[in-house]
Amino acid sequence: MNIQTLEDLFKDQLFDMYNAEKQITKALENMAEKASDQNVAEAFRAHLNETREQVTRLEQVCEMLDWKIEPEKCEGMEGILREANKLIENCETEAVCDATMIAAAQKVEHYEIASYGTLCALAKVLGHDDVEKLLWDTLEEERRADEKLTQVAEEGVNEQATQRAA
Amino acid sequence: MNIQTLEDLFKDQLFDMYNAEKQITKALENMAEKASDQNVAEAFRAHLNETREQVTRLEQVCEMLDWKIEPEKCEGMEGILREANKLIENCETEAVCDATMIAAAQKVEHYEIASYGTLCALAKVLGHDDVEKLLWDTLEEERRADEKLTQVAEEGVNEQATQRAA
Repeated sequence: MNIQTLEDLFKDQLFDMYNAEKQITKALENMAEKASDQNVAEAFRAHLNETREQVTRLEQVCEMLDWKIEPEKCEGMEGILREANKLIENCETEAVCDATMIAAAQKVEHYEIASYGTLCALAKVLGHDDVEKLLWDTLEEERRADEKLTQVAEEGVNEQATQRAA
Repeated sequence: MNIQTLEDLFKDQLFDMYNAEKQITKALENMAEKASDQNVAEAFRAHLNETREQVTRLEQVCEMLDWKIEPEKCEGMEGILREANKLIENCETEAVCDATMIAAAQKVEHYEIASYGTLCALAKVLGHDDVEKLLWDTLEEERRADEKLTQVAEEGVNEQATQRAA
């Protein structure tokens, strides 16, 4: 799409994120299934539920703005997940695989933090106050999901991965 | 590469980031040249200089660990930059182009924040204390670069983009 105005940029980034969330849903389903550590699996499952809510929230945003979602492939997320899948396939022990999936999931989370940060800033300057509030809820969830993954990694998974490989 | 141990994961992520930094260097050169707002151009130029330092720092890390850097394409960064380039090409006004480049650059920054965050956590658990310190310096630079871009967007660029398009 041609980007003539800031509203065009906002719309493009919104549709891009909608596709990204769909890709993330599938990735989290796979990772939750593959995780061997209980805390890792639980973190992925909890965020999977949030991600499904976030998809619905984006649909709600588009309804509020009277925009029909146009299918658009999020190439950024595609690249991040392609790289993640290759890496996960090459893992040879469960504990190292958990650590690898956390690393990959944090790249996903940070892509989302950047995107929703931009979406909130654009919604604000464009005067879409109600929409901004909804997007802000998602941004906060992404930040918390990222913190949770850091905690799970630092409080056990990385240490376990070192011990089991030793 | 097969990931048998946490050290393998660390090495893979280090080489991945080395390639990502090389890709980012080129992208920042282009964006600094294309920016029309003085503050945006300055933010990109300043971070370009930091990025060149970060490449050297990664080479230093590999020397400290006695590792020869293996060329590896960072597909995550490739996807992020492919998407960014398409979007920038489709911008029809200078002010909106600046806002678009900031959005794209913040996705780049957040990929780096996630990656260096993981690298720091892995260096710590693997006992590579000196290496962790160097990686931490980069992580802090990435966080500051991201904050700077938010500031530049919120203190003028987004507002200008709305006005000029109105």
